[in-house]
Amino acid sequence: MGKIGAMAESWHVAEDKEEGREGRPPGFRAGPAARLLRVKGVFPMLKGELHNPFIAYETWGELNAARDNAVLLFTGLSPSAHAASSVEDPRPGWWEDMIGPDKPIDTRRYFVICVNSLGSCFGSTGPASVNPNTGNPYRLSFPRLTLEDVANAGLEVVRSLRIERLFATVGASMGGMTALAFCLLHPGLSRSLLCISSATHSLPFAIALRSLQREAICSDPAWQGGAYPLGREPVTGMRLARKLGMITYRSAGEWDVRFGRERSAEPRGGGSLFQVGFEVESYLEAHAERFIGSFDANCYLYLSRAVDLFDVADHGGTVEKGLRRIVLERALVVGVESDVLFPLRQQEELADGLRQVVSDVRLTSLPSIQGHDSFLIDMDRFRPVVGEFF
Amino acid sequence: MGKIGAMAESWHVAEDKEEGREGRPPGFRAGPAARLLRVKGVFPMLKGELHNPFIAYETWGELNAARDNAVLLFTGLSPSAHAASSVEDPRPGWWEDMIGPDKPIDTRRYFVICVNSLGSCFGSTGPASVNPNTGNPYRLSFPRLTLEDVANAGLEVVRSLRIERLFATVGASMGGMTALAFCLLHPGLSRSLLCISSATHSLPFAIALRSLQREAICSDPAWQGGAYPLGREPVTGMRLARKLGMITYRSAGEWDVRFGRERSAEPRGGGSLFQVGFEVESYLEAHAERFIGSFDANCYLYLSRAVDLFDVADHGGTVEKGLRRIVLERALVVGVESDVLFPLRQQEELADGLRQVVSDVRLTSLPSIQGHDSFLIDMDRFRPVVGEFF
Repeated sequence: MGKIGAMAESWHVAEDKEEGREGRPPGFRAGPAARLLRVKGVFPMLKGELHNPFIAYETWGELNAARDNAVLLFTGLSPSAHAASSVEDPRPGWWEDMIGPDKPIDTRRYFVICVNSLGSCFGSTGPASVNPNTGNPYRLSFPRLTLEDVANAGLEVVRSLRIERLFATVGASMGGMTALAFCLLHPGLSRSLLCISSATHSLPFAIALRSLQREAICSDPAWQGGAYPLGREPVTGMRLARKLGMITYRSAGEWDVRFGRERSAEPRGGGSLFQVGFEVESYLEAHAERFIGSFDANCYLYLSRAVDLFDVADHGGTVEKGLRRIVLERALVVGVESDVLFPLRQQEELADGLRQVVSDVRLTSLPSIQGHDSFLIDMDRFRPVVGEFF
Repeated sequence: MGKIGAMAESWHVAEDKEEGREGRPPGFRAGPAARLLRVKGVFPMLKGELHNPFIAYETWGELNAARDNAVLLFTGLSPSAHAASSVEDPRPGWWEDMIGPDKPIDTRRYFVICVNSLGSCFGSTGPASVNPNTGNPYRLSFPRLTLEDVANAGLEVVRSLRIERLFATVGASMGGMTALAFCLLHPGLSRSLLCISSATHSLPFAIALRSLQREAICSDPAWQGGAYPLGREPVTGMRLARKLGMITYRSAGEWDVRFGRERSAEPRGGGSLFQVGFEVESYLEAHAERFIGSFDANCYLYLSRAVDLFDVADHGGTVEKGLRRIVLERALVVGVESDVLFPLRQQEELADGLRQVVSDVRLTSLPSIQGHDSFLIDMDRFRPVVGEFF
């Protein structure tokens, strides 16, 4: 956690919890290292607005005197702002290998800020938060969310820390799109961009998969049109959605190596007659069980839809024209050969588009077999690539 | 329909319908060209047995005097025996382009038999059929189904037609596995094998997808543990399962060309807030709507699981050893580059294994972009390949 001095608008979750003002339900709060920024007044969104929303974030390292060593990190769809451990929260973060002293993003040199996405449920205001104007959770009355809104929520944090220029903006998967949105909306605010396993827009295959994940949730009677009691999630739909996610976040090749046709315990009666006979089925079940209860269903729906809706072409008519708005000193685009959600050709498209206006654009293609999620797993391949960028 | 003379055990559905003996529910019957074979007495299965089951099939062309021009065709998971039109049933069949006079499988030369899979719901006995011993539908009391059982049900038809040797056994997808099972169980009974977009066993990725399709059905409260009233299907689960199927039966590349990011009508309220904004979503919805109500959910579950369970290795300890049991004069293995369910390397494995014991094995790889379902769609590429085989 950076010692960045007192800020009138920002406080620790621990303090905030006492006040209980943010109205987040039990189990849906940020970790002990998170800070909460309350945006005062109206926060305009692309398709609506919020009043006094919270933005949760964590930081590592220290902002230097020139305030020019900040790295802004946007997350994928489901992680919190807890990207790495710290004294205040020693639990390993979702990018633990990447952020810290002597790590690829070296916190002895850089001040790293990771933002919990607007619309998520780990401290930032989202559909599971209480609408201060009504006293009830937003649920489906939350405005339609776009990744531009998520990017602008990140900007609020940057401004609150009195940072005028970022050393780098970083994101993978949805976070890469958000980082792109940030650079489109605020040209020149970041000196560099690191965009991993992301894209200028979603392809129909990825849209279809996410659409089906959302349909699984909305088809669950327990979803109740979004009005499920908080804490009584539509777990059946969430389980299906998460399993489908796992199937597409990884790669067929990895699973061939990993599971082959190993069978686990013989299934018994009822629905399980058709389930959990193979190791791969048990693996999905275990992963889904961990996810259920940790993520709010409506938040998931909003963020998932935001990924579908994002399109650089909305910023200029075509992807090519949109990317021309960007002002950066350099960019690194990283893709993975086995990624089926954001395939390599999308990284090539992004790198080519950036080359129109950015003089130093590199494209790195990694042969990881873990598919889209490789940036979370194949650290031996990702560490040197990210390290070189920083 | 072949004029193959009267058979004591076989009659038209029209006659059978009057008798009403097979107990199939409304809407789950074979077409007017289908014949029904009643297997008398006990039909042994790998993991159980059936009493007096029906096997539905259709035929085209005529059996020659030597009775050596018969082609046995097994289907994919969901089609009926209606592979092609005929005088009795002029509706186009699922392989209409392939079967008929002057078509690749020329019915002026060959007598073609297409069998509705045991366990399906288009005339053959399956979980939706009435168990003659109880008077109630089998539902989940139907014995565990394997593709070996489906193959043996095909053998019953072959025997009832007094055919001692087949000119060829043909199948695509699940039908290809069934054709393989047939050749494994009855070496030499078929002179040749045409196996399309199939495999010696399923890979974890394909198992995971089918497992999720089944879970979507079993998670639907309307499934009622398999006890849903016939005609009141778990349509929500079936819709999800079908959409997931469509996503994996086709290819990402095809959809890029076909849909891009076209949006259809703007979605409205409720669950549809998160659905049907893109053309690809509307396309899936339309396909799912056609499927729902035409296929019984329990039958789907049984057949889907049978595909997962099939493994040539069960016939000899390893795939290689299993394939050595096969006796054929020649085989053609056809695969499609964009197939993610049964990828090309599986066709290579199959062809290599067959080459151990079959002198004339060819492997054809097609660059179709329609993925696993190409054999149903990309007829310009498939017609010449199948035609050359015949």
